[in-house]
Amino acid sequence: MTIRRLSILGVGLLGGSIGLALRSSAKHYHIVGYGHRPRTLEVALNMGAIHEYTSDALVAVRESDLAILCTPVGIFEPLLRQIAPGLKSGAIVTDVGSTKRSVVKMGEQLLPPGVHFVGSHPMAGSEKRGVEFARADLYRGALCITTPWSRTDPGALRAVESFWIELGMRTTRLNPDDHDRLLADVSHLPHAIAAALVKVQPDQAFPLAGKGFADTTRIAAGDPGLWRDIFLDNRDNLRIALSKLRQQIDHLDHSLEQADAHALEVFLDSAAKIRQTIKSNPPPTSP
Amino acid sequence: MTIRRLSILGVGLLGGSIGLALRSSAKHYHIVGYGHRPRTLEVALNMGAIHEYTSDALVAVRESDLAILCTPVGIFEPLLRQIAPGLKSGAIVTDVGSTKRSVVKMGEQLLPPGVHFVGSHPMAGSEKRGVEFARADLYRGALCITTPWSRTDPGALRAVESFWIELGMRTTRLNPDDHDRLLADVSHLPHAIAAALVKVQPDQAFPLAGKGFADTTRIAAGDPGLWRDIFLDNRDNLRIALSKLRQQIDHLDHSLEQADAHALEVFLDSAAKIRQTIKSNPPPTSP
Repeated sequence: MTIRRLSILGVGLLGGSIGLALRSSAKHYHIVGYGHRPRTLEVALNMGAIHEYTSDALVAVRESDLAILCTPVGIFEPLLRQIAPGLKSGAIVTDVGSTKRSVVKMGEQLLPPGVHFVGSHPMAGSEKRGVEFARADLYRGALCITTPWSRTDPGALRAVESFWIELGMRTTRLNPDDHDRLLADVSHLPHAIAAALVKVQPDQAFPLAGKGFADTTRIAAGDPGLWRDIFLDNRDNLRIALSKLRQQIDHLDHSLEQADAHALEVFLDSAAKIRQTIKSNPPPTSP
Repeated sequence: MTIRRLSILGVGLLGGSIGLALRSSAKHYHIVGYGHRPRTLEVALNMGAIHEYTSDALVAVRESDLAILCTPVGIFEPLLRQIAPGLKSGAIVTDVGSTKRSVVKMGEQLLPPGVHFVGSHPMAGSEKRGVEFARADLYRGALCITTPWSRTDPGALRAVESFWIELGMRTTRLNPDDHDRLLADVSHLPHAIAAALVKVQPDQAFPLAGKGFADTTRIAAGDPGLWRDIFLDNRDNLRIALSKLRQQIDHLDHSLEQADAHALEVFLDSAAKIRQTIKSNPPPTSP
């Protein structure tokens, strides 16, 4: 399965960065961009992220070996319906979405036989949005999770993994259920809580905010529409994650009520010990 | 009130960084370090953070114009009792603690007449601990909150503010009650929640942690003993802050339960709008 012609469906930060990264690849790809904002597509073309563009998704995927869904998760369903009739037999479709159960299911249900869907979650991004912030090194050194299940074509899976590795990524595999459960804990919950931490502040607190507050809440500046889709799509797991956090808060509140110095130290010490083992600031921006 | 002789009581990250910053000052200070670990004091001396040291707090403050409490908040009381008989009339005592009501009260109660206490909270630091991580520019560009009240000597207040300004800080004044209330929201709550976010993760989640998780939880690696003291000292305000956060979580959980896309977007959008107005990454490390 050799990938020569590639469609990037949604040329924003993530889609644009794929195009820019492939420019320095030894292999030659022909990249077609699809989007509904002509100005964005023009910017992507001028940056060299795509070779041509169209505002017709069906046209964008015609003759493509690989099509990558790079829009917010909430648009995946209509987009898959649109492109399904245009994909050639043997084509591979993947995505960059942050949730995987629903898209893997849709890939199975909405794409024609002979077209292979492989779920991908390249864990790179930024609180910035738009192709203007696209970077050739956005994916370098970061982790890409692929989410095969029993119906996934092994050759298509390997081709998709090779593709992300070519962008400088490391890859790992998780089934879609485990992916969504673990990402609720390690990504969607932190985003929800960063937003909540911003929202509880009285106005007079902001001038006093230091680096700790800035770091803890940085991700809350992210695209609300994108995160709304992620939260909706993974709401069962996110609710479980929230209830686990609430238990920690209740426990802490009880220790404070009792002025229990030992319990407070155990709470803080166990967190500090775990946190200190986590590599600082993955992913690195250069190898 | 001219400050020539200075005592740094507790020569760790914060105390050591004061000493290093003063080396490049136009004025000459003689700096005495106090601590109970001889090795730490030796390191501080070799780094040039102090000119001499003693393991007797009473000796450390003798003839000093300014004494700065740089130990964890929980040790302030015995330390103030120890130094009280050694301070000369007209001497000023300040501190670098993260809570202010209790220390301002102790300063009033435990120090002899003629010795002036001024509460300070220089908002600089790091999740690192120890004099080895001290830096001459740690305070530069960051905010120092002083916490005067009706009994604070105006001349001593101005002298302490000038001192922090000489270290490159900006200063602002808050009464001790407002300080502790606002810092519970903007600093102690984020620390508590960062720790809770680490503690709810299953082991399999950590290899999937990206930059968002790393940033959101970075402060959880901080010194557990130091933060235990802060939490205990400000437990009433921290409990109120926790209950405000719990309300946000309950609201979010309800929106998820109802699959209420509009409510989720309003939640995320209001947080993103506020967060985008906060200057990124204060304090800057260079002016």
